[in-house]
Amino acid sequence: MIHYPGGPPVALATRTILLREYGRTIERPICIRAAGSALINSGAATSKHKYPWEKGIEMKTKVGLIRVLTTKDENLLEAHGRLVESRFPELKVESRCIDDQPKGIYDEKTSAIALPKILKLGEEMERERMKAIIVSCADDPGVEGLRNIVKIPVIGAGSSCACLALSRGSRIGTLGIREGAPRVMKDILGEHLVAETRPEGVKTTWDLMTGEGKKNALSAAEYLRKTGAEVIALACTGYATIGIAKDLERAAGIPVIDAVEAVGLFAWHLTRVR
Amino acid sequence: MIHYPGGPPVALATRTILLREYGRTIERPICIRAAGSALINSGAATSKHKYPWEKGIEMKTKVGLIRVLTTKDENLLEAHGRLVESRFPELKVESRCIDDQPKGIYDEKTSAIALPKILKLGEEMERERMKAIIVSCADDPGVEGLRNIVKIPVIGAGSSCACLALSRGSRIGTLGIREGAPRVMKDILGEHLVAETRPEGVKTTWDLMTGEGKKNALSAAEYLRKTGAEVIALACTGYATIGIAKDLERAAGIPVIDAVEAVGLFAWHLTRVR
Repeated sequence: MIHYPGGPPVALATRTILLREYGRTIERPICIRAAGSALINSGAATSKHKYPWEKGIEMKTKVGLIRVLTTKDENLLEAHGRLVESRFPELKVESRCIDDQPKGIYDEKTSAIALPKILKLGEEMERERMKAIIVSCADDPGVEGLRNIVKIPVIGAGSSCACLALSRGSRIGTLGIREGAPRVMKDILGEHLVAETRPEGVKTTWDLMTGEGKKNALSAAEYLRKTGAEVIALACTGYATIGIAKDLERAAGIPVIDAVEAVGLFAWHLTRVR
Repeated sequence: MIHYPGGPPVALATRTILLREYGRTIERPICIRAAGSALINSGAATSKHKYPWEKGIEMKTKVGLIRVLTTKDENLLEAHGRLVESRFPELKVESRCIDDQPKGIYDEKTSAIALPKILKLGEEMERERMKAIIVSCADDPGVEGLRNIVKIPVIGAGSSCACLALSRGSRIGTLGIREGAPRVMKDILGEHLVAETRPEGVKTTWDLMTGEGKKNALSAAEYLRKTGAEVIALACTGYATIGIAKDLERAAGIPVIDAVEAVGLFAWHLTRVR
């Protein structure tokens, strides 16, 4: 419940709803009563005004998103957060990245160095009253550790993607940028993991952006279907950045689960008020 | 995309949005443009009028829900569907039950008898252009079979509940009304399943509705936490009918995942337009 100090006991407030029209997002205020309304009861409000009922408030649930590579490029930093917001407009995603690792996490050593930084960012996010923490990497780095030290939900992109895939079918193929699927995904998929692959010649997500890379990703998806997969789980959040899931789905003719969309779905759901 | 035969190329339509205020649901029409709008692009419309842009349309995605017990009591039949609709107002749930099994599925024989009936209902739902099929039983009866014969998503309550639990933690305890968790849940949870139980003295969901049954359910939830569970997955959809998840969550101090809410979440997500 949000309390407005000094406000009337039943305050009239304006809630901004987002409508997607003609491919762009517009905001349209609708009038609701503030007190007792389930609508404004859904977590943090990002208030624009001192007395929100006077001039309108934007009702969003604030969640933190951790990128496990260092970048000063805001576009890159916020790429996943924007994707989550576009699919779940009730969420306001605050993206932060770990320090001093411009190449991100690529082996056990860099993973170990990143861990305390992830924990620090997560603790910060809880202190700042965010309602959930997304770790936006298919390896789920730091997810277990964070769950031990914060009280808000911590959701990893890898486990979310594997979980969402399992809700859709029981024979899952993973498409990543490394030979095999991340351990956390293998672990959840267990015997349901029927095939793992990556596009030929692709080693980083940048390779996916070339015509050749994209073509090879489509072939890899087809290969997974031929190997018996009913559902493809994308085992790298880089696929979300290039928004290829739908093309892959068309090429392979089976559902393709995007890791960032999956983690957004769970973040949205877990921060809703019951 | 919805086409209105004979309609203007860009039709003005009214979309009904549901607002929950003061505990009751009211409908408030808002005006949107019909053509090109993402809002009305989300699956089946249950149209009240021949030309919906003239008098307003109700935009809902229609999904089918299969109950695996025979009942003529509409309240009982629609209990799960109403729960799904209340949490995901974009969905219109059509509930149907299998014939001649008033006691439902309780062993291998009754499960085998039910299977062709479930498949028949699912095929019917696809023919009637429903956008997804929910099998509302934690055993996921017929889910695999249906996936082989229909093209729309088929989602089982048991697998959904296990999946949603895994997105939230890695040590899961199940609370059902039988000794162990359903096979489909064990199968998905694998090594993440740390404990399985049922409330003392409870054999059917009716037993849960007594004071004694509820008290024992709360103790069982506490037992699961003490045994090391980080998350509780409800292994029977009957818990949804009595709406006990939140009380269990308070008693145990760990997240409790409701099977009907989980299956609703996936049905909602899978029927959204990308």
